[in-house]
Amino acid sequence: MATWSERLAGVRGVLLDISGVLYDSGAGGGVPIPGSVEAVARLKQSQLKVRFCTNESQRSRGKLVGLLQRLGFDISEGEVTAPAPAACQILKERGLRPHLLIHDEIRSEFDKIDTSNPNCVVIADACDAFSYKNMNKAFQVLMELENPVLISLGKGRYYKETSGLMLDVGAYMKALEYACGVEAEVVGKPSPEFFQSALQVMGVEAHQAIMIGDDIVGDVGGAQRCGMRALQVRTGKFRPSDEHHPEVKADGYVDNLAEAVDLLLQHLDK
Amino acid sequence: MATWSERLAGVRGVLLDISGVLYDSGAGGGVPIPGSVEAVARLKQSQLKVRFCTNESQRSRGKLVGLLQRLGFDISEGEVTAPAPAACQILKERGLRPHLLIHDEIRSEFDKIDTSNPNCVVIADACDAFSYKNMNKAFQVLMELENPVLISLGKGRYYKETSGLMLDVGAYMKALEYACGVEAEVVGKPSPEFFQSALQVMGVEAHQAIMIGDDIVGDVGGAQRCGMRALQVRTGKFRPSDEHHPEVKADGYVDNLAEAVDLLLQHLDK
Repeated sequence: MATWSERLAGVRGVLLDISGVLYDSGAGGGVPIPGSVEAVARLKQSQLKVRFCTNESQRSRGKLVGLLQRLGFDISEGEVTAPAPAACQILKERGLRPHLLIHDEIRSEFDKIDTSNPNCVVIADACDAFSYKNMNKAFQVLMELENPVLISLGKGRYYKETSGLMLDVGAYMKALEYACGVEAEVVGKPSPEFFQSALQVMGVEAHQAIMIGDDIVGDVGGAQRCGMRALQVRTGKFRPSDEHHPEVKADGYVDNLAEAVDLLLQHLDK
Repeated sequence: MATWSERLAGVRGVLLDISGVLYDSGAGGGVPIPGSVEAVARLKQSQLKVRFCTNESQRSRGKLVGLLQRLGFDISEGEVTAPAPAACQILKERGLRPHLLIHDEIRSEFDKIDTSNPNCVVIADACDAFSYKNMNKAFQVLMELENPVLISLGKGRYYKETSGLMLDVGAYMKALEYACGVEAEVVGKPSPEFFQSALQVMGVEAHQAIMIGDDIVGDVGGAQRCGMRALQVRTGKFRPSDEHHPEVKADGYVDNLAEAVDLLLQHLDK
């Protein structure tokens, strides 16, 4: 394998996943991953451009950022690319009025969206709101549409909380896809449009950017398909089998964000 | 298309789906589909062998049969092929100890099964018990197994209740398959073993048998792949688009069970 110096040559911008990289969510909000608070601070003091790119769809950006600030992170709402605002833009552009299968904590993101007489379903990481009743309602809305549109905020299989692995929105997206015979439109990682919108805000080309995430498919595979490089951290939902994934090979595996930032700053183009 | 006489030639045994053919389930138990009580009675008075072949996994066979008897049907528990008893046999044969994600109404079917220290998950139509908490628990059990085994009682997309279409177990099976990266073993229609076990009890060869159901894929397609003929009724979950299904074509479409029985008795081999 190439040296770190070769692998990191020409990097000008860093995209950071949040859950499983910065912190592990859980009861009471969650806990920072050791070293990550300092790593973010060091990265932001460097000449590298930094943006946070998350599939978090259980909390609004405001609430997520508030939580991370309380945990000690230097982060502001404007630095975060998240799927709910991206979905709202799509809804407006296409005149879609969603039935929302979402967590109450993210409902405020959809405040300005017309949800009367729905002509599509938007599904997000609803956690306990993924009741049979709520799933069945979303299913019935889709089945009554002539051209059913299902928009999913991410398609993650699971994420890591302090208490263990938790089912993510992708599982419920698959349930509705199968029941209704539709294919969901994914807003969030690994959708190329989503990564590209983050790069555009940073003003960095894909070949100059590197993604750091804990999801071998959603973060690493998705970023690489956009022409970016990607590192996988051995925190969050990382599992040892990820390093032998049949389809995706990261540009590097690191123990945590702190190690990734060490390497990046060490091999920064002078 | 061949005449009914040709299509029904040599039929000696009839397999009847229950939900959507005999009755529509719903609040208070459900209601018989008009003409079905009499149709079953006429069929059982004929020289044809009759067996009920259901994917019902929300109630035990005893409770289902009790309900149908109260609705007026001539049916006994021994005449019903259902997935829970078939699953119990598989669990015993393979030394599997299930974590059960099922409805309380069917729990008694698993009374004699060891559920300590689970090494597999059995999922059935759990309805309101498909909470996020219960789904997450099943997911976590599977993720902790070295060789995860997921057994699904049927894989229906949805069924019809008097109040409307309802999500069936198949949707939740797909959710767990995706989240865990496993493929479920389906016990119930359209599994060939399941149809064959029903035929064996009847003592009828596949080419002498006809399935009558409301599910174009699970009932009609499944039975045909076993060498049986199959009629679809325009009751239950039937939708007009089923008659133009891209992959499955029934040997006939009839308005309801009463019409199917009329045709069968009219064209019975003398």
